[in-house]
Amino acid sequence: MQFQQFLTQNTQFSDDEITKMLSLCMEKEFKKGSLLVREGDKPLFSFFVEKGLLKQYTIDAKGKEHILLFAPENWFVSIRESEFFNLPSSYFIEAIEDTVVYLIKHQFLFELSLKEESFLRFNDRLLHNHILHLQKRITFMQSASAEDRYIEFINLYPDITYRVPQSMIASYLGIAPESLSRIRKELSDKKE
Amino acid sequence: MQFQQFLTQNTQFSDDEITKMLSLCMEKEFKKGSLLVREGDKPLFSFFVEKGLLKQYTIDAKGKEHILLFAPENWFVSIRESEFFNLPSSYFIEAIEDTVVYLIKHQFLFELSLKEESFLRFNDRLLHNHILHLQKRITFMQSASAEDRYIEFINLYPDITYRVPQSMIASYLGIAPESLSRIRKELSDKKE
Repeated sequence: MQFQQFLTQNTQFSDDEITKMLSLCMEKEFKKGSLLVREGDKPLFSFFVEKGLLKQYTIDAKGKEHILLFAPENWFVSIRESEFFNLPSSYFIEAIEDTVVYLIKHQFLFELSLKEESFLRFNDRLLHNHILHLQKRITFMQSASAEDRYIEFINLYPDITYRVPQSMIASYLGIAPESLSRIRKELSDKKE
Repeated sequence: MQFQQFLTQNTQFSDDEITKMLSLCMEKEFKKGSLLVREGDKPLFSFFVEKGLLKQYTIDAKGKEHILLFAPENWFVSIRESEFFNLPSSYFIEAIEDTVVYLIKHQFLFELSLKEESFLRFNDRLLHNHILHLQKRITFMQSASAEDRYIEFINLYPDITYRVPQSMIASYLGIAPESLSRIRKELSDKKE
């Protein structure tokens, strides 16, 4: 239902086209802790989160996890190198909560982009948004204080702070969990 | 000439279409040190570098510069928030060398994307490439050692190490110039 709403609000597809699109996608539930994509996979699908929460991350040579993004309700997650360039994934995608996703076949996206100019336009906007988001993330990593990065995180993901362990937020922000605790305490002291 | 070659090799436009496109763009030289875009501007153009070198960067509250990217020959640089969303730029773009660019009007890109499906396809590939590049950059910032980040930098920009001051490379990598000197020395010692 949410994916349908999302398409209705964000695309110029007709109701018939949306119904047809949905019939070609597949809803699936992943239990908390399941891996949807492993590093090295070439996933056949991208994901739209109906309900729940995913994380996309890498694991470095020392076994440490680095979170690229969280995807709560209404977010798309796609391994772009597989979707577009048929390359193996550099990332893992994992369900942090029991999560219901729409699986969107890359082949379907490819055919849609060949047939439907309106889809190209819709996707164009998504891609530009994605680029802005990533550029902003880099600029914040380069130049913002850990406190400002945390405030930005709360703005981007208002409810996630209550849904994931602090260690994951620290991993996303690239700071030690103890630093995050200190920042949260300082911000909370400022409010009082 | 290079822009024409680039379009011939990377798009499906006919020679006539390319000639027409080029006639709607404008070649311009910027002297070393000139600003093409200032933070807060809404630039009307994107840039294709024919010859020379640009940098895109932010300046933080303390006046420190953080380089998002270098753009040598054959690179596109675009303030995506202005080009697509008509928002003011978060970035500066500056010529590090005397630089010749093609100015590509955003209005022209917009009209082209309305008229030409082949342009949408071409742009789709550029946008996906851009996303991969930015994701990789974030992942490296999160998880790679300063040495590995420097090696990745050399792979991405093979000749730039000889064209820009060390302080700019350090700014791009997010490390102190002294750390960069140490890394370069260690790598050079390893080679011997």
